[in-house]
Order: sequence, then structure tokens, then C-alpha cells
Amino acid sequence: MALALAQAAEARLICPPNPAVGAVLVDVQGQVLGFGHTQVRGGPHAEVMALRHASEQGHSTLGATLYVTLEPCSHHGRTPPCCDAVIAAGISKVVAAIADPNPLVAGQGFERLRAAGISVEVGLGAAQSRELNIGFFSRMIRRRPWLRLKVASSLDGKTALKNGQSQWITGPEARADGHVWRARSCAVLTGIGTVLEDNPRLDVRGIATPRQPRLVVVDSRLQTPPNAALFAADRPVLIYAAVRDAHKQAALQASGASVIYLPDANGKVDLEAMLTDLATREVNEIHLEAGHKLNGSFIRAALVDELLHYIAPKLIGHGQDLALLGPLTEIDQAWALEFLSADRVGPDLRVIARPSGRDQF
Amino acid sequence: MALALAQAAEARLICPPNPAVGAVLVDVQGQVLGFGHTQVRGGPHAEVMALRHASEQGHSTLGATLYVTLEPCSHHGRTPPCCDAVIAAGISKVVAAIADPNPLVAGQGFERLRAAGISVEVGLGAAQSRELNIGFFSRMIRRRPWLRLKVASSLDGKTALKNGQSQWITGPEARADGHVWRARSCAVLTGIGTVLEDNPRLDVRGIATPRQPRLVVVDSRLQTPPNAALFAADRPVLIYAAVRDAHKQAALQASGASVIYLPDANGKVDLEAMLTDLATREVNEIHLEAGHKLNGSFIRAALVDELLHYIAPKLIGHGQDLALLGPLTEIDQAWALEFLSADRVGPDLRVIARPSGRDQF
Repeated sequence: MALALAQAAEARLICPPNPAVGAVLVDVQGQVLGFGHTQVRGGPHAEVMALRHASEQGHSTLGATLYVTLEPCSHHGRTPPCCDAVIAAGISKVVAAIADPNPLVAGQGFERLRAAGISVEVGLGAAQSRELNIGFFSRMIRRRPWLRLKVASSLDGKTALKNGQSQWITGPEARADGHVWRARSCAVLTGIGTVLEDNPRLDVRGIATPRQPRLVVVDSRLQTPPNAALFAADRPVLIYAAVRDAHKQAALQASGASVIYLPDANGKVDLEAMLTDLATREVNEIHLEAGHKLNGSFIRAALVDELLHYIAPKLIGHGQDLALLGPLTEIDQAWALEFLSADRVGPDLRVIARPSGRDQF
Repeated sequence: MALALAQAAEARLICPPNPAVGAVLVDVQGQVLGFGHTQVRGGPHAEVMALRHASEQGHSTLGATLYVTLEPCSHHGRTPPCCDAVIAAGISKVVAAIADPNPLVAGQGFERLRAAGISVEVGLGAAQSRELNIGFFSRMIRRRPWLRLKVASSLDGKTALKNGQSQWITGPEARADGHVWRARSCAVLTGIGTVLEDNPRLDVRGIATPRQPRLVVVDSRLQTPPNAALFAADRPVLIYAAVRDAHKQAALQASGASVIYLPDANGKVDLEAMLTDLATREVNEIHLEAGHKLNGSFIRAALVDELLHYIAPKLIGHGQDLALLGPLTEIDQAWALEFLSADRVGPDLRVIARPSGRDQF
């Protein structure tokens, strides 16, 4: 299963919105016959890749055991059901990490395998497999993407100087690492403030990736300039707005953007409704890179699932805060997290934290 | 030498202002004959403790090798010279980590041993020994204590809410750890702002310690209340002031404080002169726990040697910054540090960082 999980991790950047799955075929002596992982969308799933790999090497899979990090699918999607391939290959036992949360599968894969006389064990490596696909599980179970808030700040929590200068607080290693996290997301999300102030591209650069995540802009009044740098990258751009403006909308559509109106009662974009809408568009993980206002809005709405925080060994003093919150009257009103990890990335620190109990789905 | 360094570390809380030194005696077969470390001030040094330990166990030290983390002393201080004891014990070889930076010793110990026919090697474990005694080395070489700035903040760098509430941002484990760092210092340093706002004791509590560090208050206009909580702890209190006031001075002296006037050109306490003065008072390490103003003053004056930063997994938003700096106009004007370590302490993170190149003495 460790090898299968490593295979799944290999698929992390290429497979969204499909889950990252790894599969390993082993004979009765414990010899590895073949392995594989999910391919780009529409390509074969992990099980089929592993079967092909075994067959390419001239191995028979009759009586073999399949280790797979997610329940084999039982439905016709873009590819035929993996269960059928597994059964046809004469596999005698399947060890799966976890059931597929997709309601189109959800245990039916296991049932189908068992009905074909295959022994099925479930649970080994469940936590790791779910973690590799936290966004997919979130979308399938909560009908909402997993929202990761990325910030880069000094040790005293400043993301920019008072004058707005922010290039560069963290070093090149942290910035490159940030691009890997962008790459594994299905969508990079930002706000109109960041677009107007920094005119960023917000695409994946400097690392090999077969796909660019979509870009989502929260832009209540459609102020995104139709010639903004973000249109330069080759990927879909979604602009969520609150105030209708046919003229601006047409100009943005001409630049290639899709415009979606989702106003809340205050004439702002309804953030929760936006996330629900993004889930219907098959967005698993969202990489939020925005300014302190939008960061604060998402935090106050309890919509942030994870903090990805790069901390530079610097003190800046007066400057821009990373999230607009409060003023609070009691410490226990603070946004409470738990540290998952703290690692050196070049001269900087990368801290990952999650709100206590947010992962309960 | 590893055992000798471990012995030195044992002495860390008890020996200031003497350096923490460990010693191990080994016979020609490599058998440990005895070991020991520096005792409380006026007590025996590490070498003598190790010789006594060997003798208590009935071991002869004739022809033995002494591993010691600092050059044995050659002068009469509160105790007789260790060199004499080493020579008298018939030791044939001394392996010392590093020369004593004390100008009263400074190589003369090694000379005296060599003159007595003892073989001397120097350098094994030098960096670790110096690090254990960074304050002692600083005082001897720079004539200034090592200044460690302790702060506890949220992930967004806030040490308190806007309304001043700060109890508790970090957890009990981080607070206990902070008391260990207080305990190893020779003086806890704070400012009048903290005294007036929080009325803290700033003593070592909750951990076993044979000594309380002195307390130093930067209090330009002698505003410390004579009944402040800080007088409750049993230890010397030094108040550095800039504006003479015989009446207030007398009241504070009646409470047990020593008052020292060290004004700078702006009518504030001259911080650099204060540190020099504290070095003459045998202060090796200073533990600075103050508010953002005094923190900022020490940082801007380039007098902070180390940052001890406890970071709680929380976001607070509007609140009190950890150091008053800037506003800067360029990122490269930020106070630049290097991370030494980042460790979990209970639910919090303890980060230790040093200014680039500050350790060059």
C-alpha cells in the first residue's frame, strides 16, 4: 500500500478533478507485477495502468492481489468501469485504502468485486489516501471545495510594507514551493483588490505541470480590467460578481472570462454560494491568494479549511496585515487553528495549519 | 567530549555568571573515572568536581585524560586555579573544547598545563561549548551581554488584542518553556510600559531554579510604582532612568531597587550604555520581555542578538504588533534574521532566529 500511495502522490498534479489514485499488483509470493496511477482527465485510471504495466512485462495477473488507494469505480464515466477490468484480469483479492466518496461509486465497486468472488479488504492507508484527495472528498461529501489560504508574511505577520511593496518578503524557494501548491489546486482564487493593486498573472510558473488551474476572481462590481495580466495565461477565468453591468460583462467575456452573478444581501459576492457553484464545476481544491480584506471575509465566514503560511525571518513593523479581523474583545474569539507541520523552505518557514475540527466530513 | 558537554548543559541554570562547564576524566583504556560540572557561584569548578568524583569512587587519576568544555582557569578567583588541581592530580592529557575568553585566563591556562608537561588539545566541541555560554563569551569579548528578545504572538504577529488583552495567546507549555529561558538568563529586562500596563512579576516560576535572575527596568522618568508586583520576588531590581528625581528615587530605593541614571541626548535611557553597564555587573544573558515600543528601540539600535518567538496557531487581526518599526520604504530595510530552529511546544511553535552576522565575536 505504501507503493500504491507513492504512485497516487505522483498523480497529484496531473489528475484533477479526478482523484489521485495509485495501484500495485502483487503475486502470491509478494512479487510486484505492475503499478500505475491516475492519468490526465479522460485517460486510464490507476487500476488499468497497473494491469497494463503488468501485461507489458509479460506477467499474468491471474490470482494476483491488487493494492489500490481508492475503491475501484463501478460506473461508466469518461472511461469504462475499473471493476470490470479487475474482474476480467482474474484478480483474486483487492486491498483498498478507502471507499470512493463519489455517490456514483460509494461502495458499489466493492459490492461488484465481491459479487465476482473477489476478496475485498478496506482501510489500510485510509487516512493518507483521503489526505491526498482532501479536495475531492470535500467536494463529494460537503459539496464544497477544500479552501486553502496561502499567505507569505514576515515573522510579525506583515504581507507588505505600508507603501504596498511586497516583492519579495519570502525567498525564491518559498515562492517555487507556492507554485507547486498552486499547481495541485483546481482553481486559484483572488480578489479584485489584488488584481487592481498587483496585476498578477496567478498562473503556475517555474515548475513542470500538464495543466493550469482555473482562475477565479471575486469582483463584485466587475472592475477587472479586460487587459489585466491574468488573461495572459492559457486557462479558464471565472469572475464572480454581485452588481450586473452588461457593458463590463461583455468586455470581460471578450477577454475570455465567464461572468457569474451571485450577489448576497449586502450587494457583495455570496462567498459560500460561490464555493458551492465551484464544486458543481468540479473544483476540488481552491488556492486562495488574496489581500487582507478577502482573506478576512473568508475566515470570518468560516470557509477556510487550511492555512498555507510562508514566514520569512524578518520583522517589518508598520505594514499590511495578512487578514482583516476584529478588533476582537476576547482572545478566544481569535481564529483558532492547529499546526500540521512547520518546515524550512530555503531561508523561510512553511507552516500548515487547519482550523480545529474543520476536517470533520 | 559529548559527556562533558552534557555535563555543562546541566549547569546551565545554576552557574551564572560563571560559564557552564563540564569535565570528564578518562583512563588510558577509555574508562570514565569521574565527571562533574560548574556549581553555583563560589562553588567548585567542573575540573575539581570531576577529580572529586573520581576520588570518591576510589579511582586514581594518575596518567588520566581530562575532557573539559572550557580552558581550565589559571587565576585565583573565588576558587583556587583549576590548573593547579589538574597538575596535582597527575593528569597527562587535557582535551579542551575552547579557550576561555576571560582575559584573566585567555590561553594562560593552557600554557600553565603545557609548562607542567601535560599534553593539551583544543577545539573538539568548540562551537557547542561557546553556544552553551554565548552570554559569557559576549560579555568577555564584546563587553556587552547577549540580548535575547522573547515575544509570544499569534501567527499574524499580534501580542495582544486591540484592548490590550494578552492572556493567553500561547499555551501553558510555551509559557513554561519561556520560564526556562528566563531562568538561564542573568537578568530579565522590561520597560516601564509593561510595568504600568501589566504589573508583572517577571520572575521564574513553575520550574526548579536555585537562583532568580535580576530584574532590569528601563524607566526614563522613574514611573515604576514602589508597590509594583515586580518587587515581590526575591532578587535585585535595577532601574535605569534618564531624568533625575530624588524623591521618586528614594521611594524606589526603599522598595529595594537600585537606580542608575544613564540618559542619552534625547532624555531617554541610553540603551547601549545600559548594556555596557550591565556587562560590568556580570550580566551574561539578558532576557528581554517588553512591549512593542521598547522591542522596537532595541531592534532599531541593532542591540538584539536573538529572537525567541512563541507563535500560537491563531489569527487575531487588529491588535498590538510585536515591535514598533518603520514604516519602511524598502523590504531590504526589514530587520533580517536567520532561523536557527522551529519546534513544537504544546500546540504552539517556538522559533529561534538571529540577525544575520550578529554572532561574529
